[in-house]
Amino acid sequence: MDRAVKIEKVNRGNVNDFLLLIGGLAHYEDATPPDDAAKRRLKIDALSKNPPFHAFVAYSEDRPVGYIVYYHNYSTYDGRRILFLEDIFVTEDVRKKGVGKEMFNFCLKEAKEQGCSELEWAVLTWNEDAIGFYEQMGGKRLDLHIYSIEEKDFGGSR
Amino acid sequence: MDRAVKIEKVNRGNVNDFLLLIGGLAHYEDATPPDDAAKRRLKIDALSKNPPFHAFVAYSEDRPVGYIVYYHNYSTYDGRRILFLEDIFVTEDVRKKGVGKEMFNFCLKEAKEQGCSELEWAVLTWNEDAIGFYEQMGGKRLDLHIYSIEEKDFGGSR
Repeated sequence: MDRAVKIEKVNRGNVNDFLLLIGGLAHYEDATPPDDAAKRRLKIDALSKNPPFHAFVAYSEDRPVGYIVYYHNYSTYDGRRILFLEDIFVTEDVRKKGVGKEMFNFCLKEAKEQGCSELEWAVLTWNEDAIGFYEQMGGKRLDLHIYSIEEKDFGGSR
Repeated sequence: MDRAVKIEKVNRGNVNDFLLLIGGLAHYEDATPPDDAAKRRLKIDALSKNPPFHAFVAYSEDRPVGYIVYYHNYSTYDGRRILFLEDIFVTEDVRKKGVGKEMFNFCLKEAKEQGCSELEWAVLTWNEDAIGFYEQMGGKRLDLHIYSIEEKDFGGSR
């Protein structure tokens, strides 16, 4: 049977669970986790009056088992907001038990209630488990490449 | 010689130029341009007190020749904002004359001034002209796929 999941908005009481879970995702993706300064900024941003993202922690049997971060992008062709799912993460011990599905459906519900035209997200090209899950949830891959310039390369004239 | 470009924030005086240019990009991408209802929403959003995006029109010799739309994403590993460039578009008659370069450098300057950790954007996989331009400007392709669920597929249980 799928386990019951309680999804809580990030607040002063659960923000440390939230920060630990971000570290968990970074570990899973073999990425650099937030350092102390980044954790301080995350905490301030998450608890600010106008947070730059919407964050949630998922609990199962009172244990933190996952988190969600989303914010809004915008479609200029549609003139409407897109719900962009920055992070959705489930801890290893509860994977394939319906927790991620419940969390993903929560995001779809948020997008619907907020009148968004789309739910969008990015996935690392090597992450076949996640890609399988997303396709099962109805996700369609868009014909897009994502490009980036990091801060260290902003400066100077080109 | 590259032409002088004046980049203006979207306001009541230039919002119709902005809407026309969005139609131009949709035409170029062979996408559905904003319909009348979308145009109304875009205008309201662009001129609202807390707009869901930052929008600019570029002028050369007093003619509108391009536009920019960006908003902020967020990196949970960095605890900082990312400037996400939703649209950058230059009209056909002034292409390869330095207008796009000037507009792109304007975006880099905005990202720098706002303390963003990155400038990011998406490009259609078939758009080789744009890809060439972005790589010339220093853009690096990320190992990401973008997925989407459209509004019509939000509902119902999975």
